[in-house]
Amino acid sequence: MDYPKDYPYAHDQEPGAPIRSGVPEHGRVPKYYAVKAHIAALIGELGEGGLLPTERDLAVRYEVSRETVRQALRELLLEGRLRRQGRGTVVAGPKLEQPLALASYTEGVRRQNRRPGRRLIGLDRFPCPAALASDVGVEAGAPVWHLERVLLADDERVGLESTYVAVARVPRLDADFEPDSSFYSYLHERVGVSFGEADERIETVLATPREALLIGTPPALPMLLIHRLSRDVEGRPLERVRTLFRGDRFSFTVRLGGGGR
Amino acid sequence: MDYPKDYPYAHDQEPGAPIRSGVPEHGRVPKYYAVKAHIAALIGELGEGGLLPTERDLAVRYEVSRETVRQALRELLLEGRLRRQGRGTVVAGPKLEQPLALASYTEGVRRQNRRPGRRLIGLDRFPCPAALASDVGVEAGAPVWHLERVLLADDERVGLESTYVAVARVPRLDADFEPDSSFYSYLHERVGVSFGEADERIETVLATPREALLIGTPPALPMLLIHRLSRDVEGRPLERVRTLFRGDRFSFTVRLGGGGR
Repeated sequence: MDYPKDYPYAHDQEPGAPIRSGVPEHGRVPKYYAVKAHIAALIGELGEGGLLPTERDLAVRYEVSRETVRQALRELLLEGRLRRQGRGTVVAGPKLEQPLALASYTEGVRRQNRRPGRRLIGLDRFPCPAALASDVGVEAGAPVWHLERVLLADDERVGLESTYVAVARVPRLDADFEPDSSFYSYLHERVGVSFGEADERIETVLATPREALLIGTPPALPMLLIHRLSRDVEGRPLERVRTLFRGDRFSFTVRLGGGGR
Repeated sequence: MDYPKDYPYAHDQEPGAPIRSGVPEHGRVPKYYAVKAHIAALIGELGEGGLLPTERDLAVRYEVSRETVRQALRELLLEGRLRRQGRGTVVAGPKLEQPLALASYTEGVRRQNRRPGRRLIGLDRFPCPAALASDVGVEAGAPVWHLERVLLADDERVGLESTYVAVARVPRLDADFEPDSSFYSYLHERVGVSFGEADERIETVLATPREALLIGTPPALPMLLIHRLSRDVEGRPLERVRTLFRGDRFSFTVRLGGGGR
């Protein structure tokens, strides 16, 4: 099977797309990748929400085995260009663009006209392990909260967040915090603590079986993992957060400035 | 086969590690994942550079098929905890932590005591497509450079970068730019252009066959892709950059500040 178009040098491609649409200069690509390129073109024609033909139909159309079609579909699903809907496969919308900012998840999602939500998995307190102590500003052994919540956008599960914070900071967290609301608003409005700055580290990891189950993704889906260490306006350690976002549903934006940096 | 340890609630785990080491509350995990957890423990014991036993030995040790061992190894390789070395598999070092900053790749890698490098794939000029025109600050059809380079750290291929910039900005790029040097230093020192600010978007994508070939990774390895739009100190559009980093070798850091944002 041929590759769908000529790619002498595809300068008319979408800015940000892979050079030569990912085809090596020697022109040889695995069969599944040629099928993937055909389906990618079909995705463009169908538009968001469009229903893809069945695996069987695609196999007949491109004269390949169903296993080859499945491999192409698997990559397009992992990349968030397709999504399962009931028993069918439809064209997915664009990834959410979440700003890397001190602002909360809630604010970021609202800005994109999506309805943010959170579902409580668990809130428990435990003696702070030594490795966590300086991150949350307590001695090892002092009580610490672990708040774990699934992140929602328009009722779809899109992430999983673990927040660690000293009990001394928010002693009544188990009593007066509404777990589907913004923890940052709670800190600000009920506890009077404001964020000063945060260090974040972002990487890509594969979903573990537990994470896949809680978020409802295929296991081993590439995820974006953000580690955050926050300090309050006085510079004291405040929280350590581990937030996992579906790699097929999220991208992150940041503005870098201050010429001369 | 059992899971390696008891995980009632593993609060003694490394901060930043998956909760309950990724094991669902119901305690059932796929067999390959239990093997993966055993090998992860072994990785900790061996330390960076340590040689892993062969697939055959691991299959005997954990009483599973070689295919199950292979699946566990595949995930650990994708996550950058192991790497191939010759015909063996060794424990990988930690991911590079690259700051998200206006500073160049070169500076970021140097700060981590690694030796940065770049290898030219191609430099060509072409009429600017409409979709790219406003990003580089020219009319559609005006000449634009495309500079494509493989990024190196200590001679290892770790990324692939495409830079688009108007020929009018750097008319002698093909004549007086050393392709294994920093483009930003060139802009600053030879052309007198300084960066004012940049907007970046970061996402995870799978390597295309061409990218995998150029970077020397397995195809479909999860990558971190950064799209950058830069402006000069007067706020005029300067360049559009598409940089792909090996997801198993890189993480990105950013400091968020300015309380009240």
